[in-house]
Amino acid sequence: MTTVAAYAAPAAKAPLERTTIERRPVGEHDVLIEIKFAGICHSDIHQAREGWGEAIFPMVPGHEIAGIVTEVGSGVTKFTVGDRVGVGCMVDSCRECDNCKAGLEQYCTQGNIGTYNAVDHAGEVTYGGYSTHIVVDEAFTVRIPEGLALDEAAPLLCAGITTYSPLRHWNAGPGKKVAILGMGGLGHMGVKIAHALGAEVTVLSQSLRKKDDGLKLGADHYYATSDPETFEELRGTFDLILSTVSAPLDLDAFLALLRSDGAFVNVGAPEEPVSLNLFSVIGGRKTLAGSGIGGIRETQEMLDFCAEHGLGAEIELISAAEINEAYERVLGSDVRYRFVIDAATI
Amino acid sequence: MTTVAAYAAPAAKAPLERTTIERRPVGEHDVLIEIKFAGICHSDIHQAREGWGEAIFPMVPGHEIAGIVTEVGSGVTKFTVGDRVGVGCMVDSCRECDNCKAGLEQYCTQGNIGTYNAVDHAGEVTYGGYSTHIVVDEAFTVRIPEGLALDEAAPLLCAGITTYSPLRHWNAGPGKKVAILGMGGLGHMGVKIAHALGAEVTVLSQSLRKKDDGLKLGADHYYATSDPETFEELRGTFDLILSTVSAPLDLDAFLALLRSDGAFVNVGAPEEPVSLNLFSVIGGRKTLAGSGIGGIRETQEMLDFCAEHGLGAEIELISAAEINEAYERVLGSDVRYRFVIDAATI
Repeated sequence: MTTVAAYAAPAAKAPLERTTIERRPVGEHDVLIEIKFAGICHSDIHQAREGWGEAIFPMVPGHEIAGIVTEVGSGVTKFTVGDRVGVGCMVDSCRECDNCKAGLEQYCTQGNIGTYNAVDHAGEVTYGGYSTHIVVDEAFTVRIPEGLALDEAAPLLCAGITTYSPLRHWNAGPGKKVAILGMGGLGHMGVKIAHALGAEVTVLSQSLRKKDDGLKLGADHYYATSDPETFEELRGTFDLILSTVSAPLDLDAFLALLRSDGAFVNVGAPEEPVSLNLFSVIGGRKTLAGSGIGGIRETQEMLDFCAEHGLGAEIELISAAEINEAYERVLGSDVRYRFVIDAATI
Repeated sequence: MTTVAAYAAPAAKAPLERTTIERRPVGEHDVLIEIKFAGICHSDIHQAREGWGEAIFPMVPGHEIAGIVTEVGSGVTKFTVGDRVGVGCMVDSCRECDNCKAGLEQYCTQGNIGTYNAVDHAGEVTYGGYSTHIVVDEAFTVRIPEGLALDEAAPLLCAGITTYSPLRHWNAGPGKKVAILGMGGLGHMGVKIAHALGAEVTVLSQSLRKKDDGLKLGADHYYATSDPETFEELRGTFDLILSTVSAPLDLDAFLALLRSDGAFVNVGAPEEPVSLNLFSVIGGRKTLAGSGIGGIRETQEMLDFCAEHGLGAEIELISAAEINEAYERVLGSDVRYRFVIDAATI
């Protein structure tokens, strides 16, 4: 075991503070990663504040991890010391179910092992990326291509793959009209990726406050959802709406913006149930769906795609001491567009 | 104009009574149909009782119509006098939008013209199949193959196509596990069609009361949704659940019965909004969708498929005087499985 520095929430809703945690010895198939950067995802806050149900404390959040391999186990074949690597939302799965075999470890029927706030197969609590080091099985470690800066790559491990996977699955591309709902950490990556995939991209954001940014990142159109005219004008428009928001939504109003056979796909997750009139999906054979992160193979594909197209995240680099303040700013939608912790300051 | 006999609801929630209505002169592209049989669909009751919103009275319900062509307009090319024909839920559409051009008239972006409780392009109120005759454009008339008895064919015009279309669209077939939720008019046709398509079929019904029928119609398995163990045992099982029920549902519980990438498709429509936890679709990338009847081309395809496989509806033939009693029995789920009015008794 190795003792390393980390930032942890000692209890639900308590501020995060500096502490130390134990990392397991580097096993046969493990890599030891010196964490360079860790993104702050809205879901870190949901979990640290128990918005999504009972959680494990102390909690070291962080599942957008970019770093350098500093040690490898004897059986490791994919990585060597010095490699630039990333770790996302999961660090293991059953590896045997149909989904795992199909590269859909995120939908492991036994449940995948979260990078933090979970218990691994050895019975140990997992701790995430707000830390100086992490030990991860190479099977759940991905390579960060040279073309991506590590700090701008970190958010791709969640915000990138969470938008890339459904955009690919629902065929965002040339000839398709895609709306990205919400212009935050996930949304801004959704805009970049959907644009790079060749789709006609519309941002649907509460206000026009970030319109200039949206157009710069690749959006063709930008509308405010606070304006009722948006819902008149865009009625029946989109093949795909990717919802990145975790606030409760008027789903019926958004489903009306889809064309026939269109899909409204949720990657954001409100804490409360939503209400829905089923006529909103029956008329036009519409789909309301969801998508969770992506598999390991697809995460690597996403990183390669982002490197090829120069798609890093737009970030605000902060020191670890600023985490609690950053949480408040995320809740106030006051970040452009992802806080990334410089792990050297932990 | 021709005066013909019909059964109409004079006002919302009022009992239906015998009356006369005017049918338009047979136009260039019209056929005059002597109605032989008309099915009673649950949606007739929803509309006659204004459960789905404001309606037009007097109302002659009926959109499961089977009959014989007795006169054709000068421009009619598809039909001749004596042909066995059917009319379903719509009698016209804009015919110009992308959906109409694609044979998806049911999703006409201008709104299709309902067979009853609607206003047609000439500004006239439409009256449905609880009547002795109807005049319909040949473009919205389909052929009933010789292999199908007219009385057993009538319900196919709504119950048949409403289940056939989503079963085809979501690829029910060999190797797929399909659940039919609700064992009523739509559900029993869903079982027959899904089985004929080669899927492994499970009925999910409130009780086991109709189990023998379900197995006889082609189901491989039959479970009661009133039994909590059903939800334990079938967790993660289905590729497709076709919901034919119009009662409010615990959607989250049913979504848990889907495999990853599975779809829960509603063709039934509760009058009230439903509640949904979006995590139910995010985990496993699941789909909640809807489907409404089918296009004209697909309706013909369905009739040909049903004739080929010998799939008529299971019916209880009634006289027109029994309509009001039949409505009460439909509401009490006391029909095996579709009431069909003998139009000779109107």
